[in-house]
Amino acid sequence: MASLKLKKRRRPGISPGTLDGFSHTDRTKEAPIHLIQYSAQEFFESDIDDVAHMTCPAVTHDGVYWYNIDGVNHPEQLSKIGYMYQLHPLLVEDIASADQRAKMDDYENHVFLSLKTISFEPKHHVLTSEQISIVFGKGYVLTFQELNKSGDVFDPNRERLKQNKGRMRRMGSDYLVYSFLDTVVDNYFLVMEKMGERLEIIEQEMLVSPTAQHLKDLYKIRRELIYMRKAIWPLREVISKLQRDECSLISAEVSVYLRDVYDHTIQVIETLESFRDILSGIVDVYLSSLSIRMNNVMKVLTVISTIFMPLSFIVGLYGMNFKYMPELESPYGYPLVVTTCVALAGSMLYYFKRRGWLN
Amino acid sequence: MASLKLKKRRRPGISPGTLDGFSHTDRTKEAPIHLIQYSAQEFFESDIDDVAHMTCPAVTHDGVYWYNIDGVNHPEQLSKIGYMYQLHPLLVEDIASADQRAKMDDYENHVFLSLKTISFEPKHHVLTSEQISIVFGKGYVLTFQELNKSGDVFDPNRERLKQNKGRMRRMGSDYLVYSFLDTVVDNYFLVMEKMGERLEIIEQEMLVSPTAQHLKDLYKIRRELIYMRKAIWPLREVISKLQRDECSLISAEVSVYLRDVYDHTIQVIETLESFRDILSGIVDVYLSSLSIRMNNVMKVLTVISTIFMPLSFIVGLYGMNFKYMPELESPYGYPLVVTTCVALAGSMLYYFKRRGWLN
Amino acid sequence: MASLKLKKRRRPGISPGTLDGFSHTDRTKEAPIHLIQYSAQEFFESDIDDVAHMTCPAVTHDGVYWYNIDGVNHPEQLSKIGYMYQLHPLLVEDIASADQRAKMDDYENHVFLSLKTISFEPKHHVLTSEQISIVFGKGYVLTFQELNKSGDVFDPNRERLKQNKGRMRRMGSDYLVYSFLDTVVDNYFLVMEKMGERLEIIEQEMLVSPTAQHLKDLYKIRRELIYMRKAIWPLREVISKLQRDECSLISAEVSVYLRDVYDHTIQVIETLESFRDILSGIVDVYLSSLSIRMNNVMKVLTVISTIFMPLSFIVGLYGMNFKYMPELESPYGYPLVVTTCVALAGSMLYYFKRRGWLN
Amino acid sequence: MASLKLKKRRRPGISPGTLDGFSHTDRTKEAPIHLIQYSAQEFFESDIDDVAHMTCPAVTHDGVYWYNIDGVNHPEQLSKIGYMYQLHPLLVEDIASADQRAKMDDYENHVFLSLKTISFEPKHHVLTSEQISIVFGKGYVLTFQELNKSGDVFDPNRERLKQNKGRMRRMGSDYLVYSFLDTVVDNYFLVMEKMGERLEIIEQEMLVSPTAQHLKDLYKIRRELIYMRKAIWPLREVISKLQRDECSLISAEVSVYLRDVYDHTIQVIETLESFRDILSGIVDVYLSSLSIRMNNVMKVLTVISTIFMPLSFIVGLYGMNFKYMPELESPYGYPLVVTTCVALAGSMLYYFKRRGWLN
Amino acid sequence: MASLKLKKRRRPGISPGTLDGFSHTDRTKEAPIHLIQYSAQEFFESDIDDVAHMTCPAVTHDGVYWYNIDGVNHPEQLSKIGYMYQLHPLLVEDIASADQRAKMDDYENHVFLSLKTISFEPKHHVLTSEQISIVFGKGYVLTFQELNKSGDVFDPNRERLKQNKGRMRRMGSDYLVYSFLDTVVDNYFLVMEKMGERLEIIEQEMLVSPTAQHLKDLYKIRRELIYMRKAIWPLREVISKLQRDECSLISAEVSVYLRDVYDHTIQVIETLESFRDILSGIVDVYLSSLSIRMNNVMKVLTVISTIFMPLSFIVGLYGMNFKYMPELESPYGYPLVVTTCVALAGSMLYYFKRRGWLN
Repeated sequence: MASLKLKKRRRPGISPGTLDGFSHTDRTKEAPIHLIQYSAQEFFESDIDDVAHMTCPAVTHDGVYWYNIDGVNHPEQLSKIGYMYQLHPLLVEDIASADQRAKMDDYENHVFLSLKTISFEPKHHVLTSEQISIVFGKGYVLTFQELNKSGDVFDPNRERLKQNKGRMRRMGSDYLVYSFLDTVVDNYFLVMEKMGERLEIIEQEMLVSPTAQHLKDLYKIRRELIYMRKAIWPLREVISKLQRDECSLISAEVSVYLRDVYDHTIQVIETLESFRDILSGIVDVYLSSLSIRMNNVMKVLTVISTIFMPLSFIVGLYGMNFKYMPELESPYGYPLVVTTCVALAGSMLYYFKRRGWLN
Repeated sequence: MASLKLKKRRRPGISPGTLDGFSHTDRTKEAPIHLIQYSAQEFFESDIDDVAHMTCPAVTHDGVYWYNIDGVNHPEQLSKIGYMYQLHPLLVEDIASADQRAKMDDYENHVFLSLKTISFEPKHHVLTSEQISIVFGKGYVLTFQELNKSGDVFDPNRERLKQNKGRMRRMGSDYLVYSFLDTVVDNYFLVMEKMGERLEIIEQEMLVSPTAQHLKDLYKIRRELIYMRKAIWPLREVISKLQRDECSLISAEVSVYLRDVYDHTIQVIETLESFRDILSGIVDVYLSSLSIRMNNVMKVLTVISTIFMPLSFIVGLYGMNFKYMPELESPYGYPLVVTTCVALAGSMLYYFKRRGWLN
Repeated sequence: MASLKLKKRRRPGISPGTLDGFSHTDRTKEAPIHLIQYSAQEFFESDIDDVAHMTCPAVTHDGVYWYNIDGVNHPEQLSKIGYMYQLHPLLVEDIASADQRAKMDDYENHVFLSLKTISFEPKHHVLTSEQISIVFGKGYVLTFQELNKSGDVFDPNRERLKQNKGRMRRMGSDYLVYSFLDTVVDNYFLVMEKMGERLEIIEQEMLVSPTAQHLKDLYKIRRELIYMRKAIWPLREVISKLQRDECSLISAEVSVYLRDVYDHTIQVIETLESFRDILSGIVDVYLSSLSIRMNNVMKVLTVISTIFMPLSFIVGLYGMNFKYMPELESPYGYPLVVTTCVALAGSMLYYFKRRGWLN
Repeated sequence: MASLKLKKRRRPGISPGTLDGFSHTDRTKEAPIHLIQYSAQEFFESDIDDVAHMTCPAVTHDGVYWYNIDGVNHPEQLSKIGYMYQLHPLLVEDIASADQRAKMDDYENHVFLSLKTISFEPKHHVLTSEQISIVFGKGYVLTFQELNKSGDVFDPNRERLKQNKGRMRRMGSDYLVYSFLDTVVDNYFLVMEKMGERLEIIEQEMLVSPTAQHLKDLYKIRRELIYMRKAIWPLREVISKLQRDECSLISAEVSVYLRDVYDHTIQVIETLESFRDILSGIVDVYLSSLSIRMNNVMKVLTVISTIFMPLSFIVGLYGMNFKYMPELESPYGYPLVVTTCVALAGSMLYYFKRRGWLN
Repeated sequence: MASLKLKKRRRPGISPGTLDGFSHTDRTKEAPIHLIQYSAQEFFESDIDDVAHMTCPAVTHDGVYWYNIDGVNHPEQLSKIGYMYQLHPLLVEDIASADQRAKMDDYENHVFLSLKTISFEPKHHVLTSEQISIVFGKGYVLTFQELNKSGDVFDPNRERLKQNKGRMRRMGSDYLVYSFLDTVVDNYFLVMEKMGERLEIIEQEMLVSPTAQHLKDLYKIRRELIYMRKAIWPLREVISKLQRDECSLISAEVSVYLRDVYDHTIQVIETLESFRDILSGIVDVYLSSLSIRMNNVMKVLTVISTIFMPLSFIVGLYGMNFKYMPELESPYGYPLVVTTCVALAGSMLYYFKRRGWLN
């Protein structure tokens, strides 16, 4: 995750709203479509083979039809869905484009949402991210997931629908969309919790015995924070727009719930910011303590050098082989030199002690 | 305090507005409920055993009913209170959720406030923080305290009510809520005062003899400032919303008081910011002075090395045992070498003095 | 000045609007009250012994009554004045509270202003700061000065009134208040001038021979800038509110003058910001030059060590006392060793010169 | 690219709206003009020799006339075009001025756009930038390209028109302008992709074996990011103004497309910002690791010096030539000295190990 | 330029709107007044000796009267002009005050502008700055220049009027004022160009062989950027206010021209900001490269010390004069010691090579 390689987009000059420009398209296999249809009384679940079997939004039904499409690499399939649900070509292109900014576009009969789920994969200690596109209108919700994989961020929502928990089955498609947003934001919290734990462990360890590896770990966390911020920051705006009556498809009742998700998003962002602050604080303390230790190392070196260099010079002096060195003949020469050395070393130590270099 | 471990929230996918997802719930014991009922003439105080004995908000009474619930870990109890006072499920969830951002939600008949008290615990030199949720309507106030402990941030308010001091008993529930906000913000001031004192002590000490421990203390204060800022910043908005006529439950008279609390909140935030500025200034001065001392240490080392290394070489030269070294025979050899050494050392010292390395 | 110790405020939980909570009150002596009464024709000056002798604002008079109260530590006196002028209890509390943020509160019949004067005390080279509270209505102005001391920031204004200079005596109380604001802001300019001079002196000296003391001086200036910014920033808002017709007590004519003060305040703030910028620039240059000098010192050390360590080894080698060292017998041994040493030193110097270490 | 030399503008004092002040004008050769005329049914392409042969905008035609002028250095030609299309003198000056900020000016009958294309030239690993000016009205579009060169940023748009792909031929001049903006922004994405790849390569390499060259590469990327930000930031505003109904020449249908380009622009800007963040993170990690390694190097030096300096002193001591050194006579002298040296070295190593200097 | 010494302003407490407080006034000589009177047909130029000869603004004339006053140090002269043109006392004070922030005040019959010209003086390589005050009404423009010197920033404008170039003579006083603003902003561009060139030269040189002088040059440029920003930032606002219909004296036609100047001002500011960014980037690269070189120097020192210190110890060992040192007698002693030394040095070099310290 958090790779700097941008995922491929439509090549420049390709006609906007067409799907030909995507190099990663894979025409061999259509993405599986899963339908959940529910109302207060009913719950029905099935797999759809063909786009043609999807319900036309113009025909009124009871209950809500939720189609989940697992994969966005099949342009023809997307085109067919787009045609059936009268989606604007740019909307379909946004669904197919993998590196989308979180956005909300309000069309006359439906609303388009694009956002990123982020979750922490414990096996490889990495963040994984998936783009989710949501189109919803009266009585239907389409969700497009970037990756076709088993295991799903919306599994708990399905479970709740199935078990008829909460007020979910009684409410319309707007509440279902809210429940998706809520799940996504709750997942952000989980990721933040994990990050907080890692930060705290690193913080504890660095105050005791810091290593270069800690710095790299902190750098990795910093990269992840930058990535998350980029994903979550525009979502804040999206939810705010949904909530502030700007969208006719959102009922007043659901609007209250959206305000709650909005508050949570703000909280995630503020936690992100404070993590950044704390992280840079840890690095600062570490670098400062490096400087302090460097200073101490240099003091030791300087004290040792300053004491022994003059002493070495003195003994070197009397190691010279000159014929005429009167001191060498004297019986007091040797003791005097030794005494001088001791006195010199002592006075230097005293000097360094007074300058505070021996702590 | 200021731990990076986020407190547990509802797990992702759990139905919003239900209280089942909180892992820290404790079903064995209901939280104690304390009632203070007062009007200009009366003051009455009692403990409530059962939620059913609480007064229904629909029935009009004279005076104000203040229920204080000490603990939010009992979901059933919260549900019952929520049912009796017609609280929105999300509101009840916010009360139960421990890691809430300061917020104000205006429902039709009541207002919900959530905020954090911060106080300095002198015994362990740490900040402690508690989340307070306040629900108030016409004639009643509910306060929910996160922790069930003896000693209370609102004790002075109780005392004032009891002693009928000030205009408190004459006014409605909005003034009581104001008095809570005022107490909480005054506590922030106390914490800031303590912090200011610690900062000043560290500042004084570091200008004289800085140690690595000071850096860690500063880092701790910085962490606490980040924490406080995160708690207080959204409160500013909350009070501003309460004050600016946006809330029908706040009378014009109390609004003037809220403006005063608002000003105090701004002052706390500005003090926080200036503390951050000062803190980073102290660290900068410290690191700069480290660099200066390092420079001085290195100069000493270099001066010593530069003087004694050549001297040692000279005396080493005449310590060689070659047969044919004519200088060794000369009676002037030894004095000449000594003179050379002195002259060399002298000229080097002169050179270093001129370059300013001997200050 | 610029101490981090916050001045004591009302203790938490004390009833807001009462004056009992201030620990620094001094009940023994009332603050002296000085009256200046003037109109275009008259000028009258006297000391008031008793609050009861002050003019009631309800009774209409010609001219303007300016009461200056020198000291805010006598709660009873403040209460009496508050009662006579119908001041809100919170307003009176704000007057008594020493560590107030600059603010402007518009009550129905009067306006409350609070601000800080800052002046440079040349004797101790420190900034001194005093809080001024101003209440003005139609025909009267009350000024409360925090400190009871001889010498006054408003002396020039008094002088101008007495000498009937400018348009001051012809205008109402709003112009008098403007003249106070103008004097206070002009004092900020004086302080900024002094600071600019100090900054420039330090800048000049540091580019020649920087010392650690300079760093501490810069840190002190930085602290003062933070302090001033905290005092002046909210004043900007206060004057802006006064000027923008939001206040019925300000005439259109005076509003033009307030716009002028507002511009000056902005200019002070921008100068503050540019001083901060310049200050941090000086520190950066200094630290960079430290690094450069460190580099040079290390190069000298390394050059010396690299040259003399091998030489010392060589001469040490031939100082060994082995019986069988054929070179020692040779008459060419000694000259060869000396030649080798010279060649070695020369080639190393050449190498260092080429790497650019000898500049 | 990203040169700091600003391109020449009109000299100060030269009459605004005249084209005489441009020193780089080249009167010898007119810029080639290329016309593409199309409607849903037709497509026609030709080169125009003379400005007089261009269609007058007042006469209504079917379809869209797109004139592309390759070069802006011929003032007379520009004047003639300006006269024919009734362009404001300042507009013509903006076209001729090479260093223009991205802008949009809405005149009564036409709209003026100015923007910068940025593309990555793989041969020299540099960014190249070209200024494009666009004037469009009902039924016509004029594009002015700064450089007269073969190969063109709008070639794909021409191709699409020719092949009648997409909805391009059915729509008016506003859609053509949109398609230009889309192409330009898509090119930004390509550049960002390239930059992301380079950043990632540098990041990988620096975590393994960083060199000074990497720092210079990062500095170069940083310069390019600054340059791109300066070019793209105002474009955001331009597109936003075009899109928000502020311009009568943009149809509602095209407005939806412009919203899409706007989103892409925001995404480019956010990616730019996160690249800056990541870049400074890499530099920080690198500098920190430098400090760590420096620390380790110094430890090695200090350990070696501290061990061998005292030892050298000891052996130097017994190398002195004093007549009376009783230890020299003793048969235990030599083994004792050797033992002392070993013991001293060992205890020092033990000491350093305990202080953790030997990791 | 860019001195930190603020120019003297009115002393605190001096009556606002009077001119007595300026210490730099010079009552001996009136500033020369130069009149240019023009209309589409006429052009007339003369020097005015006495303020009384200036045209009264109340009397209507054809054409525009432009009075240029060279110097603002003569308070009486300013007062007379102020009286004749009915200027507000504060306006006159602003003209006399040398250190004014760029501002625009709209009075009923005239508009007051204050701004700073900045130009690069090539002789001393410094920026010079002059304050210009402009008052204009219907049919007249007064310009006040701070300095009385030959050579003028508005010479090109005079020349253009004289030569009847452009549309200048046909338009009113508002266009003349626009042409002044245009000239001033064009001068900013020239200064930025010069700065860009200097930055680029320093950048080139520092990447090759950086010196401490470069740092000081960069610091000087940084100071100049701070100064320019302070001067230009408020001008942006001034022009924006003039342009946005807020001023009745500006015709719609001239408003289009002002929009152009506004765009240029924004461009100057953005260029300033990017120069700051680039400048700090250069400093960062430089400091980083210092660290790298320091690291390399230290490695050399450590390698040399680590190799030769043990060797010196060994040869010192066998330089001892003990009677009983069996090795000394052996014929293999000497070769063994030499071999050991070579082997030791070799293995250490190998070790350092493997740790990568020898690059």
